[in-house]
Formats: sequence, structure tokens, C-alpha cells
Amino acid sequence: MKNNLQIPLRGIIPPLATPLLDNDTLDLEGLEKLIEHVIAGGVHGIFILGSTGEFSGLSTKLKHQLIENTCKIVKQRVPVLVGISDCSFTESINLAKKAADSGADAVVTVPPFYFSASQVELLSYLKNLAKQLPLPLFLYNIPMHTKVEFAPDTVKAAAEIPGIIGIKDTSFNATYLKKIQYLLKDRNDFTFLLGPEEYLPDFILTGGHGGVTGGANMFPKLYVGLYRAAVERDFEKIRILQEKVLQINATLYTVGHYGSSYMKGVKTSLSVMGICSDILAEPFERFKTPERNKIQQALEALNYKDLL
Amino acid sequence: MKNNLQIPLRGIIPPLATPLLDNDTLDLEGLEKLIEHVIAGGVHGIFILGSTGEFSGLSTKLKHQLIENTCKIVKQRVPVLVGISDCSFTESINLAKKAADSGADAVVTVPPFYFSASQVELLSYLKNLAKQLPLPLFLYNIPMHTKVEFAPDTVKAAAEIPGIIGIKDTSFNATYLKKIQYLLKDRNDFTFLLGPEEYLPDFILTGGHGGVTGGANMFPKLYVGLYRAAVERDFEKIRILQEKVLQINATLYTVGHYGSSYMKGVKTSLSVMGICSDILAEPFERFKTPERNKIQQALEALNYKDLL
Amino acid sequence: MKNNLQIPLRGIIPPLATPLLDNDTLDLEGLEKLIEHVIAGGVHGIFILGSTGEFSGLSTKLKHQLIENTCKIVKQRVPVLVGISDCSFTESINLAKKAADSGADAVVTVPPFYFSASQVELLSYLKNLAKQLPLPLFLYNIPMHTKVEFAPDTVKAAAEIPGIIGIKDTSFNATYLKKIQYLLKDRNDFTFLLGPEEYLPDFILTGGHGGVTGGANMFPKLYVGLYRAAVERDFEKIRILQEKVLQINATLYTVGHYGSSYMKGVKTSLSVMGICSDILAEPFERFKTPERNKIQQALEALNYKDLL
Amino acid sequence: MKNNLQIPLRGIIPPLATPLLDNDTLDLEGLEKLIEHVIAGGVHGIFILGSTGEFSGLSTKLKHQLIENTCKIVKQRVPVLVGISDCSFTESINLAKKAADSGADAVVTVPPFYFSASQVELLSYLKNLAKQLPLPLFLYNIPMHTKVEFAPDTVKAAAEIPGIIGIKDTSFNATYLKKIQYLLKDRNDFTFLLGPEEYLPDFILTGGHGGVTGGANMFPKLYVGLYRAAVERDFEKIRILQEKVLQINATLYTVGHYGSSYMKGVKTSLSVMGICSDILAEPFERFKTPERNKIQQALEALNYKDLL
Repeated sequence: MKNNLQIPLRGIIPPLATPLLDNDTLDLEGLEKLIEHVIAGGVHGIFILGSTGEFSGLSTKLKHQLIENTCKIVKQRVPVLVGISDCSFTESINLAKKAADSGADAVVTVPPFYFSASQVELLSYLKNLAKQLPLPLFLYNIPMHTKVEFAPDTVKAAAEIPGIIGIKDTSFNATYLKKIQYLLKDRNDFTFLLGPEEYLPDFILTGGHGGVTGGANMFPKLYVGLYRAAVERDFEKIRILQEKVLQINATLYTVGHYGSSYMKGVKTSLSVMGICSDILAEPFERFKTPERNKIQQALEALNYKDLL
Repeated sequence: MKNNLQIPLRGIIPPLATPLLDNDTLDLEGLEKLIEHVIAGGVHGIFILGSTGEFSGLSTKLKHQLIENTCKIVKQRVPVLVGISDCSFTESINLAKKAADSGADAVVTVPPFYFSASQVELLSYLKNLAKQLPLPLFLYNIPMHTKVEFAPDTVKAAAEIPGIIGIKDTSFNATYLKKIQYLLKDRNDFTFLLGPEEYLPDFILTGGHGGVTGGANMFPKLYVGLYRAAVERDFEKIRILQEKVLQINATLYTVGHYGSSYMKGVKTSLSVMGICSDILAEPFERFKTPERNKIQQALEALNYKDLL
Repeated sequence: MKNNLQIPLRGIIPPLATPLLDNDTLDLEGLEKLIEHVIAGGVHGIFILGSTGEFSGLSTKLKHQLIENTCKIVKQRVPVLVGISDCSFTESINLAKKAADSGADAVVTVPPFYFSASQVELLSYLKNLAKQLPLPLFLYNIPMHTKVEFAPDTVKAAAEIPGIIGIKDTSFNATYLKKIQYLLKDRNDFTFLLGPEEYLPDFILTGGHGGVTGGANMFPKLYVGLYRAAVERDFEKIRILQEKVLQINATLYTVGHYGSSYMKGVKTSLSVMGICSDILAEPFERFKTPERNKIQQALEALNYKDLL
Repeated sequence: MKNNLQIPLRGIIPPLATPLLDNDTLDLEGLEKLIEHVIAGGVHGIFILGSTGEFSGLSTKLKHQLIENTCKIVKQRVPVLVGISDCSFTESINLAKKAADSGADAVVTVPPFYFSASQVELLSYLKNLAKQLPLPLFLYNIPMHTKVEFAPDTVKAAAEIPGIIGIKDTSFNATYLKKIQYLLKDRNDFTFLLGPEEYLPDFILTGGHGGVTGGANMFPKLYVGLYRAAVERDFEKIRILQEKVLQINATLYTVGHYGSSYMKGVKTSLSVMGICSDILAEPFERFKTPERNKIQQALEALNYKDLL
């Protein structure tokens, strides 16, 4: 394992948006700007090829370029986590090898998401996978996209497998992580990370380690500040910053009321802020002018320049 | 409105189990014992005819007996909230009238749960309902049973309707109440109550008012203590008591892995503790000896007598 | 058992709409007109208090009036089936007694639809229920409203319980009835009825007994004709009439794109046709003028007078 | 377009299982045997890289080998359809190019299945995809795996896009294809194919073109016979053969009650029959001896040798 990764992993690890020039071309300049932006904002790690990073829409070739270039730009200033989620075991292993060769610190996977496996099958899959992985593995629970979850008992069993070191949960079910925290209450070395931003401080206050919060692409300082306020139990600061995060969720992630509104909101905001383009991978298209204007207005209502 | 009800309603309000002698006979003695047990434990209110109270399985006649007798036994020592959930508008109104006549303080309803209504239809329904209700109304969001939720924007609009004073959420989605808290951030008079016990302190620490926690049937002192620890930001106490609650959830509510394991666990625990019988309304049957033994062992592992 | 009910029950049994003057007042004149309309159209039975009959939204008092009056009007010209679906066992029994006292021929129930029961619990529930029922029972499978289904193996076991004589399926899953037909292939006395109108002839052609088709409220002759064409394997007639049914589904049941569009379409059509009013029970409201106009146009496009 | 593909495509097109030597090695000998087996059984086409073909679990390299070798073995005796389903647009195009280069006749795709797209986005996606495809495209509707469906109105609009020539439906919802058949009633050139085997003859009797039936891997003659019986309206033959198909479904596809029981049942049956090995791609493992024995017994109970 790399020394760069502390156990447990704590803090804000943005699920990095993937800057694109077109459906199959990486925006290298945008990628560099975005990485420098979040590192300057104090993030504790970077997670590429997650849902926010549109991993599922990207070609294998583009994924390899992204892994290589991210590691080059980050230069080990913070840990780099790489999503290797793929319905094909072999393709997941291939991505993990590329991540290790490029100098990444850990990999992350959701369950195979086309043909749902049973919990018994998932555990066996994780055993087989971990055995062949060159880097430590975080589980990534996101049943809204994968249909199947890593059940709490499966996570408890998976935590015994060498190389599996933590979980990121985006189930939106607040009892899920609580159940796992209880089952693993004697395991100080297992990392609990939260996806949904809205209850980040609640989670940190009662034993959570960190957040993989999409909004940290745009506002790393805000999310890092909220994380620290929770660690320091500064309730007045929590109140003020959590309200900002709720405003971001209510106004930047809901334009158009698509399922993809969140992802479009993140990329359009980054574009309005001059960080990278708003182009999305298929099957999604960038916002047209009226929606983009709404994002611009929502950013202004947030006084977003104060958040940078 | 009754003076007995403070705005917002704060604290632990157990969703009272309904003690039964058989499928259609109220266990009056058990009811009295259970009510005295929870009031002695310091609860801040009592909610009858909720999901834990098996409202849906009870006949109208039995519901009326329960409302009348509960109010008589409680004698206004704490507020009494009465579930009027029914797919029929008229039957809901009838239950609310019985509640008002018996001296209850508020009523509570889920959305009609057979034929799902749209959000527009739900809002119109709430307007028509509130107009005819003799008591203030709490919304009860529990999509696992009702399929449809009260969407955050619907709750925001409903909060403008005279007589609608709060919401109890059992969606298990921690972002749900956060969204509503944000939408109603200027409404200090609207009550936010949480169903799932596992993250009660997390919720209280960041602005929640209280919990409608099933485990408070058995262990009112534990849940009241956890609530107070959260209000007082006593993190060491929160840690210890929340772990107890997680143990209760992991061991008392999961025997048999039925959907009804929770309800059976509550009633069997109450029976083992000598408070009331373990009989359930159809279509559910009480645990047989092996399952009952597991509950007994789980209670002993909890050192449950120390929790009383 | 009544002689009026043939085994298996074959043909078109409309799930009768419930004519209302307001949310809690039966439209007796409309009820009589509607019953005479469908009997004149040749239907093979009448099913009241189904989903199309808005059973869940009606008060107990109104349900009793409906049962009594329907039986009086029908005067045993066709079998009357009465829905006794209720989450409360006792209320289901009460409705069944009223049905028997009024001269109905059979009762029909969905699974308890609030707190989902397991298949083991459902089977036990059916055993307990059938024991106390004064009339034979049809199962009614409609998971879109009840969440839980009667699994094929449960139906097979239920078919052994004295008094359980058939099933009506509205799962929209065409493999469901096929599986049950296979499991009960030696039981010529068990009735298979289909809810969704779109594949009525397909079902009749390969062994189905009949349809509980909502459109037969408006167009009993059309559905009876389609049923007969399927029995007689008149493929040209099937093609023409099935296309009409598909047009009804595409144009009368989809106005407004609500979940309730179907029910509103049925009642508005009946109102435009002068049979009964378009008032619905809460939480649903009748169509406003623009939607009503669309129904009127759709009826004209169907040349609906030719279908009567 | 290739002359090999008749419009509409009619008959039995088995979704070919992918014979494997291990998780990432194609069983070439098994592939040849399987293809000769189904062609000898009279099938009207072959569909590789469908759900039954475990497309999602296979590496890109193995997919390319499978496409190339299948086309070589088939030698245009029947049309070859190639699944290009992938969440990445670019990878779908790459597979389609490989299919065209190898001499396949058409390609097939499900919607992107990780991040669900709206219907508007799906239609735009199909337009962009069809523009770049070197072969005609069938839509593949299977919401149990993809969450999102191609809604009937989307299919109607897609049918206007040059190159989109048909749909295969595995929604299990029998009203789905009926709605689309109605919407496209004037389009004799659009192909309707059914996945679920249980109601294959019902579908053919009322206007369907064919079946993509998994059981035709083992018993091509049976499914071809059932298809022909339906085309010829030979009801006695339909009854006998449909019962066999229902027995196959009830006994070969349900061992172990996993979600993957179907796929394991198909491969184990092929292995027992000596056609290819029973190895599955990750995350699935082949049956152990007790389950394999059940398959063997079920095959014997079917008198399967008579079906060959």
C-alpha cells in the first residue's frame, strides 16, 4: 500500500467531474484547472471515475488517459482514488492495473450493475477481485444506479478480506451506514465515507470519517469548512455552512428536473465559473441557454465568489 | 388547539404498540400498563394508531375503543396524537372526530395508500381534509408502506394550510427532512419528527425536534436519555446510548427476517418484559418459541433491566 | 354456494365504477343506469368494490349501501362479486357478511396493502379468512397498488383451501398467469381472470376464462364481442376489436398523465355518455373542462355510439 | 444493409449463451457445437451478446473474439444479431464496427443502464447512435436490468429514425408490446420480438413476429415448433408445446432461487447435454453438484431427448 493513504481516510474527497472537449476527448487543460482548484481549496483526496465523473459513459481509452493525467497533475499532493466500476471483472482489473501503474493510491467499485447478483455472489466476487487487485479497495454503495446494494452483513464480511479498507455510501438511507458502523464498531481501520451532502455534518458528528461530496468540485473550501466545523463541533458554523450546502442542492442540482440535473448542474456551474467546459458524455447533453441562465442566477444568489 | 400541545413539539413520542387479546379485542390492562410504563420513562407525548400500532389491521370499533381508553388513561399528562390514516377521507374524518371527542391533542395521517395520488392531488386532499378536522394535523411520510411520499415542495405548501403543524418522517432518506428543514427555515412553528431510531441524535444535533421511536415502547428512558444527550451535546453519552439503540435494532427487530420482524420484535419484547401480550392483528402471527427465545436472549444481552 | 355462479367463471365481468353524488353519497339513479347498461351489453357478471370501483376511497357506510343496492338491481340476472379488500381482517369479514346477506355470489380480496406480509403470512391469512367467509373467494393480484403479490406457489397452495375458487390478475406480467395455469393445470374448477384489457384475446386464446375489464363499464358489447371472438378463434374479428380496445386505452385512459387518469377517464366517459356523474371519491377530483373535452373528442374519434 | 435480414424479422432467434473456458476465455469448440445445434434445430437467426449471453460480464477482447468467431461459424446461414449494449456510446460504436467488419447483419442495444436517462435524452441518444452505426439497430427493452424503459412513445419516435428497424421486449409487461403495436400499426416493416417464453404463442397469435427465447439454446426444435404452431393456429399443438415450455421455466430456471438461476439453468443444461461447459463469467459461479443434479433430474422429467 502507498504511504500517501492514511487509515482511516478522513475529510473531503471530491468525486471529480471529468472535463471533456467532446464525447470522447478529455479536456486536459480543464482537468488541470479543476484539480488545482480543489487542491487549493484544501481537499483531502481526489476520487476520479465515480458517478459524478460519468465513469459509465466514458470509453476505456479515455479512462486510461484520465487516470494517467490525474496522477501526473496531482503529484501525490493528496491521495488519488480511482473508480474501477465495470460489469466485467476483467475490465475492472485492467483499470486497477492502470491506476497502480500511474501511481494512484486506491481503487473504488460499485457492484456489477446490469445483472444483479445475490449477496452471496457479491461476497465471492469481492474475494476474487481483491485477490487480483494491486491497490486497496473501497466499496461504493449506490443502489439508485446499481439496483443491488452491498448489504450491511456483506460489508462486515468484506471488511475481513485483505485489501478492502472502507466504504462510500450514496444510498441516501441514513440507517445504512449506522448499521455498518455498529457491525464494525471494533474496526478503527475501516473508512466510512458519505455521498449525499445534505447530512454531511450530522454524519461527521457521530463517527463518520468524511464526505465524497459533488459540490466540492465547485466549492472545495465550503465543504472542507463544513467538515472541519463538524470535527470541531462548532454548531454555529455548521448551521451557516450546512444551509449553504442545502441551497446548492436546492438550486444548482434541480434545474430541468431530469435525473441528470445533478450532473448537469455540476458541469454547468464549473463552466460558468471558468474552470472547464460543460460538455457531458452521451447519453446526456449540456444545458441550453435558459437552463444555463438559471444556474448562473443560482450561483449569483449563492454569492458564490465568497465561497471560493 | 389544545394547550397541552407545545409548538414545536419536542422530544420522544413513542408510536404506541396496540395491546391485543385477540385479533379484534383490545387488551385494556396491557394498554394501561404500557402507557404508565412510557410516561414513567419520561416520554413527551404518545402517538397511537401509527404503523407500530398496527393501525391498518384494526377494525374501526377497536380503533374507537383504543382512542377513548388511551385518552382516559393518559389524562392529559402528555399530549396524545391519534393516527387517522385511512384510504377513505370519510373514515379519516370519523376517526378525527372520535379523537377530538375523547380529548386527544392532534391527529396524524399518511397519504391514501392504495391508489397513489399525484402531488397536486395530495395537496388538494390535505386542504380538503384540514378544513374538516377538529384537531391540528401532522403529516406522516412513510413511502415504504404508502408507495407515494409527501414531496418536499408539497410539505412546504401544506405548511401554509391552517391546522397542519408538522411532519413525522420514516422515509429512511436523511436528505428528505434536510430539504424540508431548508424549505421551511423561517417557520419556527413547524415540527420535524424522525421515525428511524438509528440516527436520532444526528437529527437532533442539527435542528430536529424529536423522535417517534418504536423502541421507546420498551425502553422509554433510553430514548429520552439519548434525546436529552443530543439536546445537551453530550457526545460521550450520545456514543454510549446510540450504540445501545443500534444493538436493539440489530437484535430485537430482525428475528426471522420478515418484513414484520420489527413489529413482532416490539410486541414480543413487551411480552417478555411482562407489559402486555405478544398477540398481533392479522395478517401477522406472534413468534413461536424459537423466535421468542431469541428475543429473550437479545434482551438479556442488552442487560435490559438496566435500561428501564 | 349459490347456483348463480358457474365454475369456472367465464366471460366479461366489468369492475363496476361506483356512481357518486359527492364524496360520501351514492348516486343510486346512476348505479341503476350503469348496471342496466352493462347487463344489456351482455356481461357475464358484475364486480363491485374493485380498484375501478374506488373501494379504497369509500366509507364503510357507503360500501354497505352499494352492496345492498347492486344486488337488488341485478336481481340475480348475473353473478355479483363483491370486493372485501381491507387491511383489517375484521372489516373484510364484515363486508363479506353484508355481501352474503344481500344475495351476492362471491367475494374478492387483494392482500393487506399497508404493511406487506410475507408469502407464508399471506397463506396463513387466507386460511383464516376463508374459514370465516360466508361466500366463495377470488384472489385479486394487483401489486402496483398492494406492493406484495400472491406468488404463484401461494396461489397453488391457496387453491387447496376450501372456498378459494379463482384469481383475477392485474399484475400486467403476462408470465404470472401462465405460471399459475401451469401449476394448476389439473384443476378445471379454478378460475383465471385477467385485468389488463390490452391482451384479453391473447389470454383467452390460450386457456384464460375471462376478463375484468374496466372499459366494459362504457362498452360492454365491445368487450363481450372481443371475448366471444377469442373463444370462437375468429382472428379477423379479434384484430378489429382489439385495435378498438387499444385505442380506448391510448386515448381515454391517459388524459393528464396522472396515475388516476384511468379512473378519471372511465368516470368522465360514463358522464359524457349520460350514464352517471363524473364525481370521484377523495383524493381524486373530476376532470376540469379541458380534460373533459379531450375525453369527449376521444369518444367521438372512437365512433363510440357504434360500440353501444 | 445485408440481404440476409428479412423485414420484418420472423421466427425464433435464440439469445446465444456464451461458452466459456474460464472468466475471460472463450470456449471455441463449445461455441461451434452450440451454433450447429441451434441451426440444426431450425432457428431463424442468432443473437449474441444479449443478457443470456452474459454480455455485461465479458471483456471487450472476448466480445470481439465472440463476434468474429460466431460470424465465421454461422457463415450467413441465418442472420446474426450482435448486442452492442454498453453504457459508453463510444464502446457501443466500437462493437458495432467489429460486428459489421465480421459480417453480422444487425446490432441490438439496451438503454445506457447505469445513470438513467430521461425519454427525451434516450431519443436524442438513439438519433446520435443510429447516425454512426454501420448496421441496422434493434432496440432491446429490459427494465429489470436497465431500470429505464424505452417508453412506447419513444419507440414510436425511434421507429422514424433511419436504421432503427425493430424492438425486442423483455419487460414481462404484456401491455407494453400491445401499445407499441397499436402506435405502429401502419408500419409493416418494424419488427416485434418477445423475450419471455411463457407467452410466446399468445404473442404470435395476435401479431407478434418472433421470440428471442433463451430455452432455444437447449431445445431449438421445441421453440421453433411452438412458433410454427402459433403461425399455423394449431391450438392442440400449441397447448402441448406451451406446457413443455412452462415446465422448462418452472424446473430449469428456478434452481437455487437466485436472480441468476435462469442463466445458470441454461448453462448447466447445455453442459449436461454435452454441448458446452457450465462456466459463467463473474460475478456468477456455476452450480455445485446438488443444484446440477436438480437440473439433470428436471431434464429427465422433461424427456429432453425427445425434444432434440
